[in-house]
Amino acid sequence: MGEFDLIARYFTRPARRSPLGVGDDCALLQPAPGMQLAVSTDLLVEGRHFLSTVDPRTLGHKALAVNLSDLAACGAQPLAFTLALALPQVDEAWLARFAEGMFALADAHGCELVGGDTTRGPLAIDITVFGEVPAGQALLRSGARPGDDLWVSGTLGDARLALEAFRGTVSLPEPVFASARARLEQPTPRVALGLALRGLATSAIDISDGLVGDMSHVLRRSGVGAEVEADCAPRLLAALQQGLVADTVRVQDLVFAGGDDYELAFTAPERARAAVEAAAAQARTPVLRIGRITAEPGLRLRDAQGRPVADRWAGFDHFA
Amino acid sequence: MGEFDLIARYFTRPARRSPLGVGDDCALLQPAPGMQLAVSTDLLVEGRHFLSTVDPRTLGHKALAVNLSDLAACGAQPLAFTLALALPQVDEAWLARFAEGMFALADAHGCELVGGDTTRGPLAIDITVFGEVPAGQALLRSGARPGDDLWVSGTLGDARLALEAFRGTVSLPEPVFASARARLEQPTPRVALGLALRGLATSAIDISDGLVGDMSHVLRRSGVGAEVEADCAPRLLAALQQGLVADTVRVQDLVFAGGDDYELAFTAPERARAAVEAAAAQARTPVLRIGRITAEPGLRLRDAQGRPVADRWAGFDHFA
Repeated sequence: MGEFDLIARYFTRPARRSPLGVGDDCALLQPAPGMQLAVSTDLLVEGRHFLSTVDPRTLGHKALAVNLSDLAACGAQPLAFTLALALPQVDEAWLARFAEGMFALADAHGCELVGGDTTRGPLAIDITVFGEVPAGQALLRSGARPGDDLWVSGTLGDARLALEAFRGTVSLPEPVFASARARLEQPTPRVALGLALRGLATSAIDISDGLVGDMSHVLRRSGVGAEVEADCAPRLLAALQQGLVADTVRVQDLVFAGGDDYELAFTAPERARAAVEAAAAQARTPVLRIGRITAEPGLRLRDAQGRPVADRWAGFDHFA
Repeated sequence: MGEFDLIARYFTRPARRSPLGVGDDCALLQPAPGMQLAVSTDLLVEGRHFLSTVDPRTLGHKALAVNLSDLAACGAQPLAFTLALALPQVDEAWLARFAEGMFALADAHGCELVGGDTTRGPLAIDITVFGEVPAGQALLRSGARPGDDLWVSGTLGDARLALEAFRGTVSLPEPVFASARARLEQPTPRVALGLALRGLATSAIDISDGLVGDMSHVLRRSGVGAEVEADCAPRLLAALQQGLVADTVRVQDLVFAGGDDYELAFTAPERARAAVEAAAAQARTPVLRIGRITAEPGLRLRDAQGRPVADRWAGFDHFA
């Protein structure tokens, strides 16, 4: 099967909202009047971001999910995406599964594939995603202010727990492993929450490299610091809620520096607490208040008695 | 050097036209009122699209140039781009040269880097480019009509000639090799010509996989055929114009199926001949009329006496 047959068979569907989709030199996008286009790109490389043994259906999901997560962190409504794919060979069963996982998530968000590129090469997937956001309403990393609450969505650390199980450093009961593995392989982009937080959150970021590491970007760009209640960690690890026994420090490692969570960390004024809770309920997404923004720079972890907890967690760095 | 330092040092420049550039979860683009956004992505993989020995400066140029060429083929004005980069290691000298080549071309077209992703992995470069085009004025592949003239810009086949010289299948005098190599490694995206052809050309495509193969996409999407004057080939190969001796059939191979040309093939009504010549002069881009569009499907090559010339050229296919 050649490049053009491959595109035609697996990656060509009629454009519904976009003026022009797959098959010309360019796709055409038409943001609605008053809308800005939010753009993000995430490159996934075999062995670095996923194992060669991963089910291609979950890989198709994840490659798009990590991009939708960036739109969520901006409060943007998904619109369209492009797919660049390097494949070692044309494996039709693999492609069919990959496309199935990718399009299932795309359809759930009304996000259409409008273009791309395919070539032979070491397995790599680069998706660039486009969303709409009213001009001036995007959630940025730069808006956190001293006194704001710090919130996170969903649960943290379970994806890393699954990775450690794959690596053999922990042994998990089967149900715990299954749910942790689902978090690693099929993250849930918090698109509805991002939309609901427009006008409420002062800043937002999606957690891909670990909470502590990713928050450092928000703090630096906002010119502020944060205090985080370290004791919230056990409430954030789903595996622990499900009965897995683990010592506290290990739970903190997973929750604060696990990575691959694709949850949102966001800030909002204290007076907006009820509104944030209502927005989260409307988006059917659990949220937890874990700390507050301070004028003093840096991120500090505190225990229940307000004593400092050493921050041993640097953000995951793809070149470290 | 970590991922974030790398981005900060080589790939972060202040956004000038875009509301938000590198450094947040998404970039923000704001097309002017009445404008559509043209989007294209091209993935370049080491060993497939470039040799490991290539000067990173020319690689930076080419990775962006092949994308700008897609905008040119749509008649779109370059606006912004994202860069996803997988690198086997962080080589600062390499990165500095790569960025230099990429930004030199970007600046020449007023096209700004607004976002991206970097990771460790086998060397691969995926650029997604954004341009503006007035709604309804994009040059498409689907608009060619019987009776239209078929035109190409610049010269064809020289990039492939350089590739054959690298492969050792031909031996070239040094000046010929140098200019052919420049065509392979530093193609010129025909952005000004694409803009000048708005409202004149009925269809356009950029020639990346060879004229005959790429024209097949235009013909199929337009529901037409074409007759091409095979004898135009020697006028299109710059190396031949510069005094390289080569037999006719080899010249036709290079010109009609060489690939990597990044010239435009476009169609326009016969009555627009003078206007096309004027548009090309305004864009300072040579163009040559090489045939005409027919109602009969398929592409047919004819010699000066109108006799059929066998079409032995299928388009380059990255999976063939």
